[in-house]
Amino acid sequence: MIKIYGKNCIYEAVRAKAKLLEVFVEDKQIDKDENFIKMLTDKKVKFKTVSKKEMDSLFGSDHQGYGAYRDDYEYKDISVLFKNTDKKQVLILDGINDPHNFGAILRSADAFGVSAVIIPKHRSVSITQTVAKVSTGAIEYIDVIQVNNINYAIKELKENGFWIVGTDASGNMKAKDIDSSLSLAIIIGSEGFGMSRLVKQQCDFVLSIPMVGHVNSLNASVSTGIVLSLLNQ
Amino acid sequence: MIKIYGKNCIYEAVRAKAKLLEVFVEDKQIDKDENFIKMLTDKKVKFKTVSKKEMDSLFGSDHQGYGAYRDDYEYKDISVLFKNTDKKQVLILDGINDPHNFGAILRSADAFGVSAVIIPKHRSVSITQTVAKVSTGAIEYIDVIQVNNINYAIKELKENGFWIVGTDASGNMKAKDIDSSLSLAIIIGSEGFGMSRLVKQQCDFVLSIPMVGHVNSLNASVSTGIVLSLLNQ
Repeated sequence: MIKIYGKNCIYEAVRAKAKLLEVFVEDKQIDKDENFIKMLTDKKVKFKTVSKKEMDSLFGSDHQGYGAYRDDYEYKDISVLFKNTDKKQVLILDGINDPHNFGAILRSADAFGVSAVIIPKHRSVSITQTVAKVSTGAIEYIDVIQVNNINYAIKELKENGFWIVGTDASGNMKAKDIDSSLSLAIIIGSEGFGMSRLVKQQCDFVLSIPMVGHVNSLNASVSTGIVLSLLNQ
Repeated sequence: MIKIYGKNCIYEAVRAKAKLLEVFVEDKQIDKDENFIKMLTDKKVKFKTVSKKEMDSLFGSDHQGYGAYRDDYEYKDISVLFKNTDKKQVLILDGINDPHNFGAILRSADAFGVSAVIIPKHRSVSITQTVAKVSTGAIEYIDVIQVNNINYAIKELKENGFWIVGTDASGNMKAKDIDSSLSLAIIIGSEGFGMSRLVKQQCDFVLSIPMVGHVNSLNASVSTGIVLSLLNQ
């Protein structure tokens, strides 16, 4: 079970028919937010009306009046990507540890029509309540695939027609040089260390984002958004 | 005084000669991280060596062995932008409340050569320790300007040759259509509500970012990064 909260999160979970074990609404929303309450009633979502104090104790301070216990997130198997040969884009997160970044990446993935986000089982983020909240409900629409070994997953993707796109300051390609009809697996390196060496060796293309500043690196979720926007112009 | 912590934050504060009132290094770093300790010594930064327990109690769990008390951030006056007529880009944050987003926006602002970030004094983020940490030191390089009234600031910017660029799903312009020789003030609307009506009315251009997904909005720091990357290709 994971706790989800925030109006968008609950809305998207209901809309996507996620399994909600229990739904909580803060009492003052009943009069204040008629449309949303009507939506819940129309969709036959049973909810418990509770005080602000109880909401805060269940969901922290950031719930906007709505929270739920949601069935555990079901990770998908990589084989879902190979059921047909339609053009797809997937993201591979090679060591993202910050739940805010993961949540924002899922939101961008949804916004740009990415089919799935692949994460390693170990030393990586997973779907938690912070991730769900920051994703504003995008967890309901994006397939998240957990794999034991990123390098092996990349090999499988290659065998199934995907081209591997890395991002690195040393990159020599621009997004517009990449054939937009290809299925792409885009690697997002870790915040501190970028892509691992073995992963880098498997890239067919390495993109760089031109930057001028002092700090000279972007937040991982920001650079993911930029790469997706450049590849999908 | 604000607490700053994390290796990048301390490094950039030292490099940018920020006023550090007291610097703390976790004892195990002395042997483990010789280069960084040498940098501190070379720059004549006095530091106190403390235990992990003490570091955790001063700076939480995310300090990576380094922390400092930094002099309060000095907000700049909008007049700094009008000292010369060189081409500039500035960001105007119209109601960003999340410190993670603000920190990531400062980092992108630095990476894309933005001159300053303008925030309202009220109902807005300000420079806090979370912002400093997420900015990975970019707070040392970006002028942050606090204004009483965003609409009045926009008028001043217009009078001084800036063109106002909004971002909104209803936008009808593409980044490539905007003359790259112009000084631009780019408005980033609030997470929940976008740009306010009065601000929208003052825009010379309104950009949209084409999206396809279900959730259909991007994290504010991600959309800021995308707009900056598109305007600076």
